[in-house]
Amino acid sequence: MAKVTMELKTLVYPMPAFLVGANVDDKPNFMTAAWSGIAGSTPPMVTVALRHNRYTLKGIQQNMTFSVNVPSVDLVKETDYCGTISGARTDKVEVCQFKVFYGELGSAPLIEQCPVNLECKALHILDVGSHALIVGRIEETYVSENCLTDGEPDVDKIKPLIYVTQPARLYQALGEVVGPAYKIGRELTSAETS
Amino acid sequence: MAKVTMELKTLVYPMPAFLVGANVDDKPNFMTAAWSGIAGSTPPMVTVALRHNRYTLKGIQQNMTFSVNVPSVDLVKETDYCGTISGARTDKVEVCQFKVFYGELGSAPLIEQCPVNLECKALHILDVGSHALIVGRIEETYVSENCLTDGEPDVDKIKPLIYVTQPARLYQALGEVVGPAYKIGRELTSAETS
Repeated sequence: MAKVTMELKTLVYPMPAFLVGANVDDKPNFMTAAWSGIAGSTPPMVTVALRHNRYTLKGIQQNMTFSVNVPSVDLVKETDYCGTISGARTDKVEVCQFKVFYGELGSAPLIEQCPVNLECKALHILDVGSHALIVGRIEETYVSENCLTDGEPDVDKIKPLIYVTQPARLYQALGEVVGPAYKIGRELTSAETS
Repeated sequence: MAKVTMELKTLVYPMPAFLVGANVDDKPNFMTAAWSGIAGSTPPMVTVALRHNRYTLKGIQQNMTFSVNVPSVDLVKETDYCGTISGARTDKVEVCQFKVFYGELGSAPLIEQCPVNLECKALHILDVGSHALIVGRIEETYVSENCLTDGEPDVDKIKPLIYVTQPARLYQALGEVVGPAYKIGRELTSAETS
């Protein structure tokens, strides 16, 4: 199979489309971030990469708190909007009609309409070139009650957005189940021992 | 909308299912990692979170190089297998019949069967508790020629795996297009200015 080099491309699949929140000058603001992920379990950690000039980053630096909100497909317009305009010029909360709530940290704004919300304390802000890499500790996780099944979060009700680049920049939904994790690989173990 | 607290849960959607590679004692090894993402564009950066005792981490520490390989749905068994067994006990490359190639770095093993491969230099290894957070610079990106359309990577040919937890741990495929990024949000801008 022939390979083609693409040079310095940040090309991975899938990427999330999270709404990262912070209070900037005491007002809640949110921006879309695809460059984010979980970074540890004990304590639970998350990373978010933001350009140095982002208005949201200013708020994270002010309070050392932030939020990661997981939007559903129903919030595709709001998610896209928050990635295309700066909070320095617009009250995105008002335009998007986000209902904002706060947890124990008091300064990490959370979006009620998003089915999953992580309330985070920023521990480190690393300069990695064009971006600041925020390493945060998850202090609390919130899930919308109508997205639970038997008390557990249910991805079929959460309906997360997936951000995909190349060839086009699109939001996609989750598709068909390919297989069960921690199970389907056992078929190779059996082959190996047979 | 009522919210339920889940305490310290690492709950986000979607997560990737990458195969992270390193040479351990000069032999290629790969493990599955869902806690990984892009972290910057100039230079292109990526993060991967691995438990401190992982065999793959030993290799990253030895060479300060690693790879991030994006598997397609066709590689679901191999991807799952590499997340359930340690390279200390098994030659996963042999079991999975991975064809391994190397780039300029010479010590970051890449999987030919994976449609997208990032060849990385580890710049920082942060201790974030249970996990080591590896911050790497992408030195080269490879795409399988048969996953290109008009010279550009094509997600419909790449067919990436998505890892989902809660309620069940599953691999899923990409689903339907929800909307175009940097475009669908404009409908809110129009509403705002009208």
